[in-house]
Amino acid sequence: MKKNFVITIGRQYGSGGRIIGKNLAKALQIPYYDKELLTIAAKESGFSEEIFNTMDEKPTGSFLYSLVAGTYGGNQLPLNHKLFLAQFEAIRKIADKNSCVMIGRCADYALEDYDVNCINVFIHANLEHRIQRAIKEYGIAPEKAEDIVHKTDKQRASYYNFYSDKKWGAIDHYDITLDSSKLGIDTCIELIKQCVSLIKYQ
Amino acid sequence: MKKNFVITIGRQYGSGGRIIGKNLAKALQIPYYDKELLTIAAKESGFSEEIFNTMDEKPTGSFLYSLVAGTYGGNQLPLNHKLFLAQFEAIRKIADKNSCVMIGRCADYALEDYDVNCINVFIHANLEHRIQRAIKEYGIAPEKAEDIVHKTDKQRASYYNFYSDKKWGAIDHYDITLDSSKLGIDTCIELIKQCVSLIKYQ
Repeated sequence: MKKNFVITIGRQYGSGGRIIGKNLAKALQIPYYDKELLTIAAKESGFSEEIFNTMDEKPTGSFLYSLVAGTYGGNQLPLNHKLFLAQFEAIRKIADKNSCVMIGRCADYALEDYDVNCINVFIHANLEHRIQRAIKEYGIAPEKAEDIVHKTDKQRASYYNFYSDKKWGAIDHYDITLDSSKLGIDTCIELIKQCVSLIKYQ
Repeated sequence: MKKNFVITIGRQYGSGGRIIGKNLAKALQIPYYDKELLTIAAKESGFSEEIFNTMDEKPTGSFLYSLVAGTYGGNQLPLNHKLFLAQFEAIRKIADKNSCVMIGRCADYALEDYDVNCINVFIHANLEHRIQRAIKEYGIAPEKAEDIVHKTDKQRASYYNFYSDKKWGAIDHYDITLDSSKLGIDTCIELIKQCVSLIKYQ
């Protein structure tokens, strides 16, 4: 029997990575995980969902997770590290269960040495395009949009760089990266679909 | 009439970017330019080909080309800057003439604000894969292979970063990047082909 395959998608804010992931999952008829991941992690660890949502993808401090994990007992771990661990476990459990698309949350890192097929994707787009999408698609006030684009990317990078041993958006970590402002959302979806089919996961 | 399209390919040494470009051009039935670019540039500028080949893609110094271009008269330009200019012109002339695949030589930069359709691709691969390809495909001595991989990439990055206003291998500059060690040469070719067809250049 073939192993499951997981498409992980990292994305710049406003690049359309989320909608690409959502529609890709639909096209491939496999589940899509984003906030859902958090919910599962929350339920399994016993934390309240509210706390998980508040702490989602915020940078966590100045010392490496690995250091913390080695020096703290389970109960003494700061809450955001517990959250990360819970998500890490949830990502692996989901990958065991079925093929799927996962957005953000260091999913590529959580599945790096795990027994599952992964295609690690990163979606980016030029700044102007992302600002316009933030205004039109997410309803951000025009005067705040550029600032929010930069700040959100900074948060995502901090989270990823802190918890993984990689650098967010660095070419070497991704099997395929796509510029959605140049190629368009539909072409991005189609190319990732083709990729899955060429690698013969399906 | 549709405009020409040019697929520019940047690539890490040993990643198979050249063979991907060559076979892609074959599949699309369009010309492929690599050393050929140099030959054309050499012929048009009147330099001997030998000089051009010796100086190909070596880093050029510590000051920006744009500065040099502003302060030197044409005849006083250092030879490597003349070579760059000749190639720059050749790339644009070729793009005017026909759709094609171009490897390296800052072709993406030369065509950035030019009236032609471009798909800018970057091919990378993990280090071990590139070392093994350098040994098997290029006949490099095993004990020298890793060093040559690193040095060649360093030279390519220096050349690109010096002459363009971009950073070699930085995700934002490419429409599509592919890990050939993960995806395989044939999948890379097929995905770029699909990309051309989805954007409807053909």
